[in-house]
Amino acid sequence: MKTLKIFSDIPADDASLKRLRDGVAPHRIILPAKPVASVLAPSGPDPALADADVAFAQPEAEAVLSASRLRWLQISSAGYTRYDTAEFRKAAAARGLIVTNCSGVYAEPCAEHVFAFMLAHARRLSEALPTRCASGSAAWLHLRSVSTTLRNQNVVILGYGAIAARLVEMLRPFGMKLVAFRRKPRGDEGIEIISEKRLPDALAKADHVVNLLPGNPESVRFFSAARFAAMKPGAVFYNIGRGSTVDQDALLAALRSGHLDAAWLDVTDPEPLPPGHPLLSTPNCFITPHTGGGHGNEAQTLVRHFLDNFRRFLEGSPLRDRIM
Amino acid sequence: MKTLKIFSDIPADDASLKRLRDGVAPHRIILPAKPVASVLAPSGPDPALADADVAFAQPEAEAVLSASRLRWLQISSAGYTRYDTAEFRKAAAARGLIVTNCSGVYAEPCAEHVFAFMLAHARRLSEALPTRCASGSAAWLHLRSVSTTLRNQNVVILGYGAIAARLVEMLRPFGMKLVAFRRKPRGDEGIEIISEKRLPDALAKADHVVNLLPGNPESVRFFSAARFAAMKPGAVFYNIGRGSTVDQDALLAALRSGHLDAAWLDVTDPEPLPPGHPLLSTPNCFITPHTGGGHGNEAQTLVRHFLDNFRRFLEGSPLRDRIM
Repeated sequence: MKTLKIFSDIPADDASLKRLRDGVAPHRIILPAKPVASVLAPSGPDPALADADVAFAQPEAEAVLSASRLRWLQISSAGYTRYDTAEFRKAAAARGLIVTNCSGVYAEPCAEHVFAFMLAHARRLSEALPTRCASGSAAWLHLRSVSTTLRNQNVVILGYGAIAARLVEMLRPFGMKLVAFRRKPRGDEGIEIISEKRLPDALAKADHVVNLLPGNPESVRFFSAARFAAMKPGAVFYNIGRGSTVDQDALLAALRSGHLDAAWLDVTDPEPLPPGHPLLSTPNCFITPHTGGGHGNEAQTLVRHFLDNFRRFLEGSPLRDRIM
Repeated sequence: MKTLKIFSDIPADDASLKRLRDGVAPHRIILPAKPVASVLAPSGPDPALADADVAFAQPEAEAVLSASRLRWLQISSAGYTRYDTAEFRKAAAARGLIVTNCSGVYAEPCAEHVFAFMLAHARRLSEALPTRCASGSAAWLHLRSVSTTLRNQNVVILGYGAIAARLVEMLRPFGMKLVAFRRKPRGDEGIEIISEKRLPDALAKADHVVNLLPGNPESVRFFSAARFAAMKPGAVFYNIGRGSTVDQDALLAALRSGHLDAAWLDVTDPEPLPPGHPLLSTPNCFITPHTGGGHGNEAQTLVRHFLDNFRRFLEGSPLRDRIM
């Protein structure tokens, strides 16, 4: 058996790196010249990649296509914006490059993150935690009256992948009416999938609009002024997909006018928003800094997921989370 | 048919009061001399109560027992501390007084409230919302690494009533190991019920300790220094029952030493805590002001619940949420 070279730039602690090396042996892990701190920062092409058979990394799309020996790329994140172009898909298909991502690793924390947003909003935690109001006071009566429950409310989910599937499982006990918009329905979603044509009607009925759209040329500014205007007054907008999918000026207007009750965003464009950006001082706009996928032992779960796929790759079995 | 007099002091808007009056007609609603703002504030005995056949209210326990015509009391809250004494139970039983509460109204918002606490903690929303840290920064890597998921974690619930039953339904999709402590197990709980003897062992294993104990003589300072010491290091403590069930000095010590990761409290003793109380300045102590049961249209749901029980009362059917 030929010894495979596996390029990896994941930010792994020593223990996780050892587990990765041991797990692929006798095949070899080759590291980039310098470690990459962020999976989202541009890394530039790495010469080690040119020599690799497999990559478990976040390389530039161009570097992937110029790595002529590469047979399989496992993108070490759930998002894959930089590879999601017609050009890349065509080039990958032409040379038989397999592309997988790590959505299986991030589905749980991302779905819990957006669900935490939904419940924190329903229970008005951002108002209830800092206040020290007394039972029976006007402030207390107001806070209790604006608190809500998720029970029986309407939800539209945009982008139906691993995160949405997990979120749907979590929302089951709440008796909510769930519909999703997906570019290519498969029929196995378990909830009603609607077409773009029916989206305005769904947006007009939804109490919660959950944006999980991936970043790609088709989804740029998908949430336009017209789409925000189509939403039910008092709806809540959540974004845990990509900041590029939202017209932030339109969102700002919808929040400031009170048309939307609130927005909860884990992603923005750019990240972080520059100091002084008006969304930062909009009281009904809640922003976390793209930590939706984070979880303790992230490197360990990434390595475990890769090793499982590596075994499948060696066996010739179908890989998990294959996207191309 | 004799016209019944129904004493009600619930804080209802005009529409809800009209619905209540219409719903009981030809029976009559009688109101107290002045409206009561808080369901928890001492209201003092009301002369109108002495004349009532039914009460849908929060009267003093003594006033209930001296209201000789009263056949049924529906307490307009889920908590019933002031009535939960051996003396009251005995006197109620002796004269055949039926006592119900409104746990059916508050189970959903209270269970969602504690679940919001659990998810907000797992996703570290209190740190993630104010920070503007950049992807790849040390602060960002730290925040991602301390974020967690609820999946497969261990939970102990103390006090198994309507709120716990609903919470258990909500936690089902997370594959958690759930056990509950209940004074009088019924066998229909659907999860493992443990005795007080086995509680230390359960506390030592639990990642999440959810306190839903009612306030009564047996539960005073149930969460003692010894019980906090028995908890797993790094556990999270939640209280949405009654503040009286917790030794707050012991809780403070467990939080400040770092033995507990955090406490999330919707109830304290007293409420609110006085300015300068050390729990208020403990960074891993999160407090909401007893808004767990709040929800829009609370008066409407209270009235709907009462009218359903009133119909059952007239028919002689078993009442919902009967506690005595």
